[in-house]
Amino acid sequence: MERIFEKELRDLKGELLEMAGCAVMIVQKSISALKERDLDLAEEIFQDDKRIDQMEMDIERRSIDLIARRGPVAKDLRLIIGVIKINNDLERIGDHAVNIAQAVKILSTQPLLKPLIDIPRMAELSMKMLRDSLDSFLNEDSRQAKGVCESDDEVDSLADQILRELLTYMMEDPRAVSRAIQLMLVSRNLERIADLATNIAEEAIYIAEARVIKHHAEERKDLIP
Amino acid sequence: MERIFEKELRDLKGELLEMAGCAVMIVQKSISALKERDLDLAEEIFQDDKRIDQMEMDIERRSIDLIARRGPVAKDLRLIIGVIKINNDLERIGDHAVNIAQAVKILSTQPLLKPLIDIPRMAELSMKMLRDSLDSFLNEDSRQAKGVCESDDEVDSLADQILRELLTYMMEDPRAVSRAIQLMLVSRNLERIADLATNIAEEAIYIAEARVIKHHAEERKDLIP
Repeated sequence: MERIFEKELRDLKGELLEMAGCAVMIVQKSISALKERDLDLAEEIFQDDKRIDQMEMDIERRSIDLIARRGPVAKDLRLIIGVIKINNDLERIGDHAVNIAQAVKILSTQPLLKPLIDIPRMAELSMKMLRDSLDSFLNEDSRQAKGVCESDDEVDSLADQILRELLTYMMEDPRAVSRAIQLMLVSRNLERIADLATNIAEEAIYIAEARVIKHHAEERKDLIP
Repeated sequence: MERIFEKELRDLKGELLEMAGCAVMIVQKSISALKERDLDLAEEIFQDDKRIDQMEMDIERRSIDLIARRGPVAKDLRLIIGVIKINNDLERIGDHAVNIAQAVKILSTQPLLKPLIDIPRMAELSMKMLRDSLDSFLNEDSRQAKGVCESDDEVDSLADQILRELLTYMMEDPRAVSRAIQLMLVSRNLERIADLATNIAEEAIYIAEARVIKHHAEERKDLIP
């Protein structure tokens, strides 16, 4: 028979998973709004973000309450601290989606600069990283989490590529500058979302392996006997 | 006579204060390197960031250990959770200083685009926010913390002003674009540092007032009876 504490822990993980679902959804929505130049959709994002803010507060309150009531130690305690940190990261993803929605509002009033190819690819990759990072945390799968960390380099390369391409547009036509800047901001926010997914994956590895790989290079040396 | 737990808590706060000092220092150094086009100073930042990463791990380990051994509840527990979250924010500030140092390395190989006025102002303001946010957390001074949250709008206005100015440079001369982009990235990283200081201030208010003002507008309505 399952202990009450285990059920509480499972419920908490469930809530975090729901929060992560909302974070993926809000990013998805921001990119759809960008692609379809859909101002109504962009407007929804501001409301969605408020719901995500509320969920963050609920999960944090519940986590602290669980620690206070149950006094967990070792792995259980680390897991709840992990939930608090990841919860915080997910809330910030909502803020980045809001930034993208603001860019959409500005871009929708101006002619299309160029067909969007790399930005939606970058968004897809970031969302996959986000889903995988959460899965790896909940299933304590450090192999999957390491895959997320590796994908971050791919996102960074895409961001560089987008920047270079936008630069050529700006060089050729000064009237393109303000739109190009907005697209750069979108790309920069997607990069931050991928960074946050990487943080989550690092937390997952920390939980799974009970050691910190966060600050790679230097640390790894120490781990080799 | 002071209880052992109280001493441990005080030591933990002391470590966090030291970490915050390092965070302010690394931002200061990145802006000095930018102003003086000093590549050696920029190079130091990469080493400093590694030290900050190590401090983050130590503080987190110590915080979790304290919870496990002492089983704190109510305000003490919330305080330690606050330390863990702020610690995480401070580590990210180091990452933003590294991003600035990378921009310095690129900018130093090219002629000066313009005298730097607003970026150093923005940096000063961000560092003040950072110091004040930590003070407000350690002294549980929610008034000071609210001041930090208000300064964030000022940083955002400065960032807008910088962006507009750089746009005019880019429009006038395509050869200015790549340097202007680097300065935009510096400004964007300072904006993120100010955001992180705001997070810390919000945490301070949460601890001091035992309620969440994080997600302002909507929440405030609920607090009015």
